[in-house]
Amino acid sequence: MNERKEPIPVTVVGLGAMGMALASAFLAAGHPTTVWNRSAGKADDLVAAGAARAATITEALTASPLVITCLLDYPVLHQVLDPSGGALAGRTLVNLTNGTPEQARETATWAARHDVGYLDGGIMAVPAMIGRPEALVLYSGSQAAFNQHEQTLNRMGGSRYVGADPGSASLYDLALLSAMYGQFAGARHALALVGTENADLPEFTSSLLIPWLTATMIGLPVLAQQDTAQDSDSPSGMQAVAIANIVDASNAQGVDGDLLSHLLIPMRDLIGRRAAGRSLDDLVDLINRPEQGK
Amino acid sequence: MNERKEPIPVTVVGLGAMGMALASAFLAAGHPTTVWNRSAGKADDLVAAGAARAATITEALTASPLVITCLLDYPVLHQVLDPSGGALAGRTLVNLTNGTPEQARETATWAARHDVGYLDGGIMAVPAMIGRPEALVLYSGSQAAFNQHEQTLNRMGGSRYVGADPGSASLYDLALLSAMYGQFAGARHALALVGTENADLPEFTSSLLIPWLTATMIGLPVLAQQDTAQDSDSPSGMQAVAIANIVDASNAQGVDGDLLSHLLIPMRDLIGRRAAGRSLDDLVDLINRPEQGK
Repeated sequence: MNERKEPIPVTVVGLGAMGMALASAFLAAGHPTTVWNRSAGKADDLVAAGAARAATITEALTASPLVITCLLDYPVLHQVLDPSGGALAGRTLVNLTNGTPEQARETATWAARHDVGYLDGGIMAVPAMIGRPEALVLYSGSQAAFNQHEQTLNRMGGSRYVGADPGSASLYDLALLSAMYGQFAGARHALALVGTENADLPEFTSSLLIPWLTATMIGLPVLAQQDTAQDSDSPSGMQAVAIANIVDASNAQGVDGDLLSHLLIPMRDLIGRRAAGRSLDDLVDLINRPEQGK
Repeated sequence: MNERKEPIPVTVVGLGAMGMALASAFLAAGHPTTVWNRSAGKADDLVAAGAARAATITEALTASPLVITCLLDYPVLHQVLDPSGGALAGRTLVNLTNGTPEQARETATWAARHDVGYLDGGIMAVPAMIGRPEALVLYSGSQAAFNQHEQTLNRMGGSRYVGADPGSASLYDLALLSAMYGQFAGARHALALVGTENADLPEFTSSLLIPWLTATMIGLPVLAQQDTAQDSDSPSGMQAVAIANIVDASNAQGVDGDLLSHLLIPMRDLIGRRAAGRSLDDLVDLINRPEQGK
């Protein structure tokens, strides 16, 4: 598998910030690259760098054996592809449009009907990271299509095939995004708390918050081994006291109680419904009516 | 400062799992260690390992120039210390009981009244980590007391002095804990989502979730530089689409909507109140009444 091959032609449909980055990565790696966008002017810089501008979507789809779509959402995807589906017959479509597993599965069915090899993908990176191995891209759908084009797909970033169900890449993508939102929500509350005492937030972040959140990841495999049902360990007394203290301190420091209560509620069945003799509902309630709880 | 000193005598008051670990660390490092607990039997193993069992709390407080308290909460702390405060005169009290900044400040005032040097501390570790440098302990209060006893305090873990305000260690402790709860809440939602497709959760955690959450920490310094007020960047179109997709996919996969809505609400002012043409409130509402939104 180590023989060098000529870079195969690639078409990129959709030239938002991400599509531009993808096309640039293929160009930089020497692939003949055809681009298309609803507003054709978006392609100017890529054309100056060597890309071919397709005059029509059908010309774009027939220019390459491998077609990458990266559009705003699925309504736009269907608007662009549906009238020209036949042009994709015998080719491979790698759809990187952010969507739900259900949308990915429907598009895979549509692709099969048109004799198109289909991979659905989720890009776990911002455009500036594209072209580097740390830009992870998840793929699901046709294993044969993945195997055939893996080396080309690696031009965009690190490639990871997560399963034959075309919905899997999207499911994993959305799962990882929601994990990131949780991480950010917790970090924001931490920053708000220490910010009340005029702490140096960048210094707190680099010297305490990031090392701490790196250390606490040791707890994630434990979460992964727990039954996803409602079963959970009972909280230790110390943990219950800590929860109550977070609530009281946020309250006393004047930190947005809405942020905090919502942060704690998803953990309710893990931390237990009672903390230091008070129910978690009481604690959450207390945030908005501090005068009653003192 | 490199001269070797005889390990100074230390007293540990409170022998829960954490207090036991602290006393063991001092014993292991050769410190004459006196221990006391409300139920005296808890000290048996430590006494067998060389600790001295104090017969009374006053005996415990007068046995060493450095007294560590690690009790369940502040009511217990006051119950134990208040009758014997005078016995601490001229000594240093390092209080590692989990509490709020306000409780720490009150205890510092109490200590000053009794001529006691006071440090408040927050242990960012589980008992099994104690005695290793990665067990971080935050301290605030008397800088002189910290400087005097830093080497001894290092027996418990890595020591970090965060400020003269006795409440700072507690504030930082609670902030970091809340960051951890956010991280765990996000991770649980991610695990619930991929769990709906019978994914190998431990494999997902080690090969995708942990590397991903490590990578996304690059966003935390950005959060730290934003104004803590309501100002925020407007969301990119792509991010808004992703949020809507997380909601729709969780809904379609039958994942607990309560978890998700609360995970998103703390991010509302960052991600914007509208996602893909729907308001975030509508999206959150949709989770619980899916039949209306399809």
